[in-house]
This record gives sequence, structure tokens and C-alpha cells, in this order.
Amino acid sequence: MDLPSTMKAARFYEVGRPLEVEEVPVPEIREDEVLVRVRAAGICGSDVHIVFEGITPTAFTPITLGHEPAGVVAAVGSRVEGWEPGERVSVTPFYFCGACPNCLAGHAEVCRERKVVGIHADGALAEYMAVPARNLIPLPDGVPFEVGAIVTDAVATPFHALADRAALSPGETVAIFGAGGLGLHAVQLARLCGARKIFVVDVREEQLERARRAGADVTVNPGETSPVEEILDETGGVGVDVAAEFIGLGETIAQAVECVVSGGRVVVCGLGAEPIKILPPTVFVRKQISFLGSYGFTKRNIGRLLELVSAGRLDLERSITHTFPLEEVNTALRYLHEKIEDPIRIAVTLP
Amino acid sequence: MDLPSTMKAARFYEVGRPLEVEEVPVPEIREDEVLVRVRAAGICGSDVHIVFEGITPTAFTPITLGHEPAGVVAAVGSRVEGWEPGERVSVTPFYFCGACPNCLAGHAEVCRERKVVGIHADGALAEYMAVPARNLIPLPDGVPFEVGAIVTDAVATPFHALADRAALSPGETVAIFGAGGLGLHAVQLARLCGARKIFVVDVREEQLERARRAGADVTVNPGETSPVEEILDETGGVGVDVAAEFIGLGETIAQAVECVVSGGRVVVCGLGAEPIKILPPTVFVRKQISFLGSYGFTKRNIGRLLELVSAGRLDLERSITHTFPLEEVNTALRYLHEKIEDPIRIAVTLP
Amino acid sequence: MDLPSTMKAARFYEVGRPLEVEEVPVPEIREDEVLVRVRAAGICGSDVHIVFEGITPTAFTPITLGHEPAGVVAAVGSRVEGWEPGERVSVTPFYFCGACPNCLAGHAEVCRERKVVGIHADGALAEYMAVPARNLIPLPDGVPFEVGAIVTDAVATPFHALADRAALSPGETVAIFGAGGLGLHAVQLARLCGARKIFVVDVREEQLERARRAGADVTVNPGETSPVEEILDETGGVGVDVAAEFIGLGETIAQAVECVVSGGRVVVCGLGAEPIKILPPTVFVRKQISFLGSYGFTKRNIGRLLELVSAGRLDLERSITHTFPLEEVNTALRYLHEKIEDPIRIAVTLP
Amino acid sequence: MDLPSTMKAARFYEVGRPLEVEEVPVPEIREDEVLVRVRAAGICGSDVHIVFEGITPTAFTPITLGHEPAGVVAAVGSRVEGWEPGERVSVTPFYFCGACPNCLAGHAEVCRERKVVGIHADGALAEYMAVPARNLIPLPDGVPFEVGAIVTDAVATPFHALADRAALSPGETVAIFGAGGLGLHAVQLARLCGARKIFVVDVREEQLERARRAGADVTVNPGETSPVEEILDETGGVGVDVAAEFIGLGETIAQAVECVVSGGRVVVCGLGAEPIKILPPTVFVRKQISFLGSYGFTKRNIGRLLELVSAGRLDLERSITHTFPLEEVNTALRYLHEKIEDPIRIAVTLP
Repeated sequence: MDLPSTMKAARFYEVGRPLEVEEVPVPEIREDEVLVRVRAAGICGSDVHIVFEGITPTAFTPITLGHEPAGVVAAVGSRVEGWEPGERVSVTPFYFCGACPNCLAGHAEVCRERKVVGIHADGALAEYMAVPARNLIPLPDGVPFEVGAIVTDAVATPFHALADRAALSPGETVAIFGAGGLGLHAVQLARLCGARKIFVVDVREEQLERARRAGADVTVNPGETSPVEEILDETGGVGVDVAAEFIGLGETIAQAVECVVSGGRVVVCGLGAEPIKILPPTVFVRKQISFLGSYGFTKRNIGRLLELVSAGRLDLERSITHTFPLEEVNTALRYLHEKIEDPIRIAVTLP
Repeated sequence: MDLPSTMKAARFYEVGRPLEVEEVPVPEIREDEVLVRVRAAGICGSDVHIVFEGITPTAFTPITLGHEPAGVVAAVGSRVEGWEPGERVSVTPFYFCGACPNCLAGHAEVCRERKVVGIHADGALAEYMAVPARNLIPLPDGVPFEVGAIVTDAVATPFHALADRAALSPGETVAIFGAGGLGLHAVQLARLCGARKIFVVDVREEQLERARRAGADVTVNPGETSPVEEILDETGGVGVDVAAEFIGLGETIAQAVECVVSGGRVVVCGLGAEPIKILPPTVFVRKQISFLGSYGFTKRNIGRLLELVSAGRLDLERSITHTFPLEEVNTALRYLHEKIEDPIRIAVTLP
Repeated sequence: MDLPSTMKAARFYEVGRPLEVEEVPVPEIREDEVLVRVRAAGICGSDVHIVFEGITPTAFTPITLGHEPAGVVAAVGSRVEGWEPGERVSVTPFYFCGACPNCLAGHAEVCRERKVVGIHADGALAEYMAVPARNLIPLPDGVPFEVGAIVTDAVATPFHALADRAALSPGETVAIFGAGGLGLHAVQLARLCGARKIFVVDVREEQLERARRAGADVTVNPGETSPVEEILDETGGVGVDVAAEFIGLGETIAQAVECVVSGGRVVVCGLGAEPIKILPPTVFVRKQISFLGSYGFTKRNIGRLLELVSAGRLDLERSITHTFPLEEVNTALRYLHEKIEDPIRIAVTLP
Repeated sequence: MDLPSTMKAARFYEVGRPLEVEEVPVPEIREDEVLVRVRAAGICGSDVHIVFEGITPTAFTPITLGHEPAGVVAAVGSRVEGWEPGERVSVTPFYFCGACPNCLAGHAEVCRERKVVGIHADGALAEYMAVPARNLIPLPDGVPFEVGAIVTDAVATPFHALADRAALSPGETVAIFGAGGLGLHAVQLARLCGARKIFVVDVREEQLERARRAGADVTVNPGETSPVEEILDETGGVGVDVAAEFIGLGETIAQAVECVVSGGRVVVCGLGAEPIKILPPTVFVRKQISFLGSYGFTKRNIGRLLELVSAGRLDLERSITHTFPLEEVNTALRYLHEKIEDPIRIAVTLP
């Protein structure tokens, strides 16, 4: 494949300023890296944080944003084995070393050398991106690039939370706090894991409606009823086996802890900045609750999800509510920031 | 409720002789026991072994057979709390102490005091049976007694094997050896657990057809192709994550071990009498395989399964291919023994 | 054995009033119970709470206190198997059903029917006590009754916390907050589990000295240095694998969370009444911490500990700093309440 | 550090021919590799297999053997971070990718790209060796190079078997089959893990004597008594919690399975070539045994072991019974091959 010397990339210069879609050199790859022709890139809440709020600082500027890529291998480094130009791929956005104590324990998601594509290095909102070969996951035939893009973050994060951290097992009950992108996928995944009763808590009625369509059995609007009371009531007073929090607010985290059964597990994904404040030890300890942080995911999660999509076990097509070409990346960001037309996931697509 | 003093029961006297359906006293209950009005009782392969082959000796004769009961609480012992006459129940057939090292470790299925209803004590093929209150599981409204009966053994056994012992997780691949009652339910349960690709191996074409209807993705008839080759071929040469054996034959156990991935798990339920003979350590150890016996189930498994049925997540109605009244129990046994009309599960029902 | 009809018992009437050592009938046993001739009974912090502070209400008054018993089987109920008069026993103080979802999952410590000897029923501060046979654990020859008594609570609680809940594994580092009775035993047990570096945090210098004698590698007095800084400093900036909190205070719980490594586990045993307040999700989630309540223990823990003592692997003799006869039970309580002569564990002994 | 251009290396040409200690170029390192000045290299049973028996073929010849290295960093590749010349290191001999499904699941020991230093690439029996930086483990001050060398294989293998695969927990009983280098270290490690009773089975009396000195509680010589009977007898008829096999023979593997408790675990490390033949399913399944292959170890195991040695919790100095200079490597191999002076571990040391 003949590669061009320059390409279009959407670059972030400073907080509050729209991304610049400009011509930059195609990145060079090192001996263990691969050049990916990007075909789709998901836009994530953290991109909104970077561009509009400045909460998550990038390692440098200007930087090409985007950490949810899928595409086609365009070139491989001199020592890369097992990958050929032309193969369809999804890309895990986390750089991981594979050799620190956490990686060796099977937790690359908390690799001690963890870095993120599109935050610590140029990312996916470009025609080409360079990534370590180890970050590639095969994208099965028949799974669209858009799905291969958004699966990495919005789906793999709740999958890791429910399947790995909470170890949700068939026949268990689960309460999901927050019916945004992660929470809605959590509903689908809880069903996939064999959960028998799924509660969803959110203040937004339209999101609760979506949750019901995704498979929620009971939805609770805290504006109307107390989630804890409702969940206890619906579970014969004992509570759910697992509660999963995708918001990060003090109040919903506290509720998640209060609605689990004695011996139950609470898993927290939401990234709020207030201190966590939950039940006193007299209750927490006596109920022997497990309260578990859950961060990100590994490429193993993505691989399994893509295989499940490919096998027809998991349908993610309706998760992508909007797509835009790269040139309209700022519109995409605005849609997500202002929640225009209730987006679930927005993808930028490239030819 | 006024209880009669006598009742009908199907009693086993000796190998090769039909059960006698005769009038016997209604059992008395101890202070921690419950009298159950039996409404349905599954007929199991081990009943066939007892009656026709004499393989499994009973603790005494004559004995009322039957270890897959469901019914209604008719009376409760003086110290029983939490149960009232009239409640619908399923009954776990295993007596377990709840206090030995295995029970305390969460493995009541290998309780060191384990005994079985209908083998070590009078069982379910009668109008009434006495069981410890701790053996009861609520049968949710809307779940038929027949389902509450057959769930205990034919469904809970593969559930324990796949979910507890093999810890089958979403997105994994699984090979099931043997498409009899347990194997067919294993297919349904593997889907429920989120398996992405399910292989079924059996020499009987009609059972493979049933397996496909139950959700198998690939069926293999060893009379036509080598299961190990086929499974390796279909998994890109690496093998399945989990293999589950429900036959107990030397050959199929060996195949199950040969078709798993490096690091994979093999779970064996089949109760054959030949020594197990598998791969040499040079392969078994280098692939670091886990080879796991799986025996029975606990009432926790049954409780979860009944809730899944009640929630519409698991359909067991078509598992019961034949029902007979108590008076025709010998016909029921004959159907199972001679495999007349390809029975999956046969239940005796009582008014 | 000829049993007397009456016996001495130390009974609690109301908060603030000394126990009355008075003559009461020897308890009758039910068919599944055992009468134990008490030879030693530990005095616990919760007894102090009951008598002096009224924090933990008993189920009725007057009640015989005491929930750390060891003794000899004096009589067995009609259906008890496996126990004979004359056998030496330790007794787990928790009544557990063995059949609820938590018991069946291997967590009898959070049995949904959990009750406690000496709080919900007459306890161990008497010549005889009645307990379910299932609560008995063999006390190996050569293990003194005092050790069999105090092992149940003061030792089994940190054992469950470290070995079961935190799954402390060989070569890991651990920080223990609180060097009281539980914390000091935690030090011994952490060594037994193969921990490689043990930190102990306490404001009391004499307890830190005891901790060092028990095997602590580094002791920290928060009055002098910051525990979090010290622990991070001593672990190359990464933190400990496991932190265990035995105090229940907001401040020490927060410190325990702050001193663990990314991916680490915090286990909380301390039973304080203030809400738990810890790191915000931005840190807690990103470090993917597991924050685990740990309540009590099971008889399996006690059985293992007694075998370890018997095998000479665990030395608990110096844990008992004071013994008193039953008649001086109020002195025993006062020693513990006022921390006279720095008691670790106090046992009441009976002839 | 000024590096020489050539160095001495012990190279294997063909089966049955002594290694040639000859002058070869110092290896060049790639950008992610490190050059290690070897200070000690353990001689392993597999080296004997390669040289005398030809069982394990090397990837090419002539090849520098040796896969148990320790030394000092001499130079680092251009992209290596976190290592400096002069640092003392141990080296894990397994190349692992860190990114395949097994690595991501925490099982780098069965990495799908697994290769071994000294078998697939030039190894440690040389003055210098090149290895990926990710294979390095810090060797704490005060831990001799010889210990850093032999810890990798002879100690880390049984550690992985007992701690990771069998999950041996404090207070459990364990039977070790084979008191060679791995088995003797298994005894020490079982004590470190808190095992309460350790059985060792071997036909060699002198090895049983060593096992007793290492901490075995009961030793059994199958030439004199039946191991299974003896172990059942000593455990009250129930069997041990864990059996670990380090020989790989059909007979001892079968015995290991027969001596575990219902619900017990058997872990097999021995690499024999006969098929495994064990109990029939009627027993294996009913006892619900877990039969687990265990291969190698990860650098996490080595890191923990070195820290335990450094902390004084584990003493490995007496494990090295013989040392030889590089020039005498063929004598070292002969000592191990002919078991001259009952070697446990032999190390080649370099200045």
C-alpha cells in the first residue's frame, strides 16, 4: 500500500477552542508498532471534558484527540509478527506494559505504566494513527467499524465492571445507577451475563425508557420514588446481589451501597471528584459488603465483546445514534456536550 | 389441612421387579421437617439404574423411590420457621449438614454427610414425603410443578458444572460432550451464561438436532468426523475455553481434554466406572489444564434456576416430553429405560 | 455423667450494673443440641459494650453473657451424631442456618439467620451451656481451654479478614491499623500467611512494642508521623498490597484506603458508627481499589486455627494476659474496660 | 561501562557432546533489550535432558545454554526505561508477550508466544546475555547472585503450583510427591503458606531426611508403606486438602489423586510422557476433585520470592549445594546427571 506523507487530523490546542482539522504528517511507526488507517472513532465524554472543561489535561498540545478507534492495518513495524496490512482491527486505547505486577496478575487495566491514546499520544481522530501492535484486536468480518470503535470504551467498561469486578453470575439481581451510555450497555450486558432482574435508576425519563427497551425489568426515577426503598421492596426486603454505579456522585454511590444484600457487591465506575461517603462500619461491616472500584477494561474484554457481536449474541448497532465525518468533529463534540437529540454514542467516520 | 393416615407410594423391592404402587402410612415429620404434598416427581436415569440394573444400591428395601420432587407444604414440624402449609415448593434431594468443612466452604454438594432422598430415605414417588425444612426452595407462582420437579437434577447439575465449577464466563467458547438430558440443558445454560460459540458432540443425530434447537452453534457426530479436529479447526487451532463431559466414558473424557485451549478448563459430570485416562503430563502440564470433577448441585443453584424460569429467562417447559400419573410409574420407567419416543425428561404427576 | 440440676451463671440485668453470679437451672438441651461443661470463656470488648455502655442490646434480660467458650461435652441430644460426652470442644458463637444463600455460598459468617450466643441466648459465663451440635469444633489434645476460648473471636476475626476476605498471599505487604487484641493477632496471622512486610499503626507506644514482638516489621505512631506517608515511603511509593482496619474510625479507615497500591485491597473489621468517608472516585476508581467489609468468622476458621496451634505453627498462649475465676467476672470486665495492666485477652476459667 | 567485544560462553553443539566453552561475540541488544553481565546461572534438569538425552530440542545449534540467570545490568537499549547499568537483577527465563488472552488473564506462564532463554535463544551460561527489559526482576541487596539464579526455576515452579494453582491456604494439609529440588522447595513454601501438616513421599531415604529438615511433618517411603493408606490414616480417613506431584509418573500421579479429601485439589508439575491414568469418574466426580496442571511461573512469582528471601522469611542458601566456575560447566552437568554428592541445586558462577 502506498502511504501518503500527510493526512487530516483533528487537533486540540486549548480548552474552549474548537478542534482544528488540519493537515499533518502521517505518523512514523517504530519496529513494534502498526499504522492503522482509521475508519471510525468514537467520541467520548472525556473528549468533551478535555475540549470544553479542561478537566483531563493532555500530555501535550497540539494533540490529535480520539481514543476509540477502529480501522484497517496500513503498515507494520519491522518486528511485528502476526499482523498484515489490510486486516480489520479494533484498538484498545490503553498502553499497558504487560510486565508490571498488576499486568502479571491479569489487571492490565491498572497497569502501572498505563497511558491513553489520544491523551498521552496522538489519537484516533485522524486518517492514520500509530499504535503498538499489542494494542490491536481483530475486528471480525461483518462487525461494522463504528461498532468496533465504540465497543472499546462505552461497552468494555461496563463489561469489565460487571463480569470481571462484580463477577455477576447467572440468576443474580443487579441495580444499575445511571442510564447514560455506560449504564445502557450495562443493562444489555447484565442480561448477557444471565442476570434475572435488572433495576435501572436515573432521573431522566427518556433514558429510563431506553433502559426498558435495552432489557431493564424495573426502572426507578429518584425524583419520584426512593431507589433504595423501591429496590428493597422489589427484592423481598433483602436487596440486590450487585449494584453498579456509573455516575460518580456521592448520593448515588451511597444508594448503591444501601441497596445490596448482605454479602453483596457494589462496583463503582463513575469518576466524580467528591469524597465517597457511605454507610458506617456498623452496617457495612456487619453486612460484609464488597465495595469495588472498576477502571477501564483490557483488550481481552474487547476481544470477547467483538466475538459476541459477531456471533449475534450482542447487538450494538442501535448504540450509535449519530455519525459525522471528520470535518464535522466539532459538531459531534457539541452534540455530546449539549446532549442534542439524546445521543447514546457518536462516531466520527472516515472513508 | 386434614391429613389422611395413608397414601399411595411407588415402592422398590428388588432389582428387576416393577415398583409396587401401594398404600402406606403418611410419613411422620420431626420437629425440623416438613411434610410435602407431592404434585410432580421427575424420573431420573439413576432410578432406571436402581430398578433395572441394580448399580446404585438403596439404603433399605422396600423404599419409595424418587428424588426430583415439587409440591405444596402440607404440614410443618414444631421448630420450623418461615414455611406455612399451602406454599409451593421445590425440594433439593441432597441432605446436607451445613456445618462440615465442605459445606462451610460453599460446597454443600460434597457435604461429608451427604445423603439422597429416594435412595437413603423414602422419596418423592408418593402422595406425601417428609423432608428437612432446609431442603425446601420456594417455587415461584407461574412455574409449573413439573418444571419445579425436573429442575432439581437435570438442570441444576449442568448449571453447577458450567457456572460454579467451570466458571464459564461471557464470550467464552464451550464444547459439550453428550446431548442427553443434562447435555441439552447444558446448551441452554451455556447460552444463558453468555457463551459465544457452543459445540455439541453426540453420536445420535436426533439428539444433535435437539441440541441445535436448544442453541448449539456447531454439532459434531464422532461417527462422521473427529470431534477434536473439528473443534480445533473451528476455533482457529487453539481449542475451546471450556469442555463439559456428561457421559463418563473414557474416550469422550479424553477428547474433552484434548479440545481445550492452553489454560482451559474441563469439567466432568458423567459417572462412568472406567479409570480416567487422559493426555500425558508433557501436554497436560504444559497447557496448564484444569480438569474438574463436578457433582450434583446445591439448593442455591435450584433457587436461581427457578427464579430465571419465573423471570422468563429460561424456558424448561419443552424439557418435559412425557408425563404419567403415579399409577403408571412403571410405564414411565420403561419409557426412560428403553428410550421410547426419545424422552428428554419424564415426570410423574399427582393431583 | 451425672448432671446437677443447678449451676452458677454470670447474668446481666441492666446497663451499668455488675453481673450477678447466681444459681440457675442447668439448661435443657433439644434433640440437636449439646450440653457443654464450660472450662474457659473469653471476655470480649462487646461484653464491655453490653455491660458498661449499652451499645449492643441483648435479646432479653436477665441473660447469661459470654460468647467465647471452650469446654467438654457433658450431654448430647437424642439426634446428635458424632459427639460423645467427655470430648474437648471449642464452640463457635454464631448460630448459622447452613441453608440460606449466604451459607450455601460459603459465607456462614453473614448467615441471614445469624444470632450470637451470649447476646441472643444464654452464653458461656456459666458452668454449663446448651448449643447446637453443629456449633462444636474439636479442641485438639494439648491445646488449653483458655486458648480454645479466645481463639473464637479475637483470632478467628482477623484470620477471616486477612485470609478469606483480603486473600492475603505469600510475599505480599500488609498494613494493620489498630494494635489491640485483633490487630496484634493480625500481625501473627499475617506472618503465618507469608506476608513479607508488616506495618502496624497505633497511637499507643506499648501496643506498638507488642506488635513488634508479635512480628511487625515497621510500626508507625500517627502522633509522630503520617502513616500514609511512612507506608508509601517504605514501599517505594506504591503502597501496600493489603490494608486491614481494626478500629472503625473514620480517620484510620480513610488512611487505610490511601496507603494501598493500585489494585490493592482494604479490609475493614472495626465497628465504628460514623459514616465511612474515603477517597473520591477519581482516585478510588482509577486505582481500582477493593474495599471490603469483614464480619466475624466461621467454625471452619476456628477449626483451622486450632489445628495450627496444635501443630505448633501458631502460639496463642501469650495472648491471654489475665485469667479470673467465674466469681470474679466483674473484675475481669473492669480490667478490660479500664485497660488495667494492658490486657490483650482475659479469660474466665472454671474448674 | 566499557564492554568487551567478545566473551566466554558454554555452547551446546549436539547431544552427548560436552559443552564447548569458547570465545564468541558479546550479543548486541535491541532497543527494548538489556545486556546482563551474568554472575550466576543455575544448572537445571532440563539442561541435563538437552545435553545427555536430547529430549528437549533447542531451537538451533550451537546455542549457549542456561535459563536460570542472575547478574548486573551492563547496558540498556535505546527505549528501555527504568533500568540503569549497575543494577542487580534476576531474569525470568520465559519470553512472554503480555498481550495474548492468557497473559491478559494473569497467566503469562502459559503465554501463547512462550519461549525460553537458553532453549530458543542464547542463554545464561556466558559472561553476557541479551534479554528483553521486561524479563528483569530487581535482585535486592543482600540476596546473593546464586540465590537470584536458582530462585527462578527450582523455587518459583513449586511456588506457582502451591500458591497460584492449588491456592494452598493457611491451616490446610498438603502431600508432596517427589523430594527432589522442586519438592524440597515445595516443603519450605508450604510452610511459608501456613500449611499445618506436610507429607512428603519419595523412595530415596536421604531425600526424605532432607525433607524433614526442610519442615516436612510426615515422610513416607513407598518402598515401605502405601502412601495413600498412610496419608488417609494420618488425616483421620479424609485425606489431605492439597496434593502436589513433582515427578510426572503415572503411579505417583494416581496416588496423589487418591489421597485428597472430597473437594480437594491435586496439582501436577512433573513432566512425564506416559498418559495420565487416575480414578474413575464414579469416584473422581463424586469427590469433586480438581486436578490441575501447573506450568512454570511468572516474574511476579520470582519478585515475591526474592522479596521474601530479602526479608528473611525464606532461606535458600542451603539449596545451593555446589558451585562451579564457567570453565567447569561440564563437571557441573555431570554432577547433576549422575547425582554425585546428592546435589539439590548447582550454580555456575562468574566473576
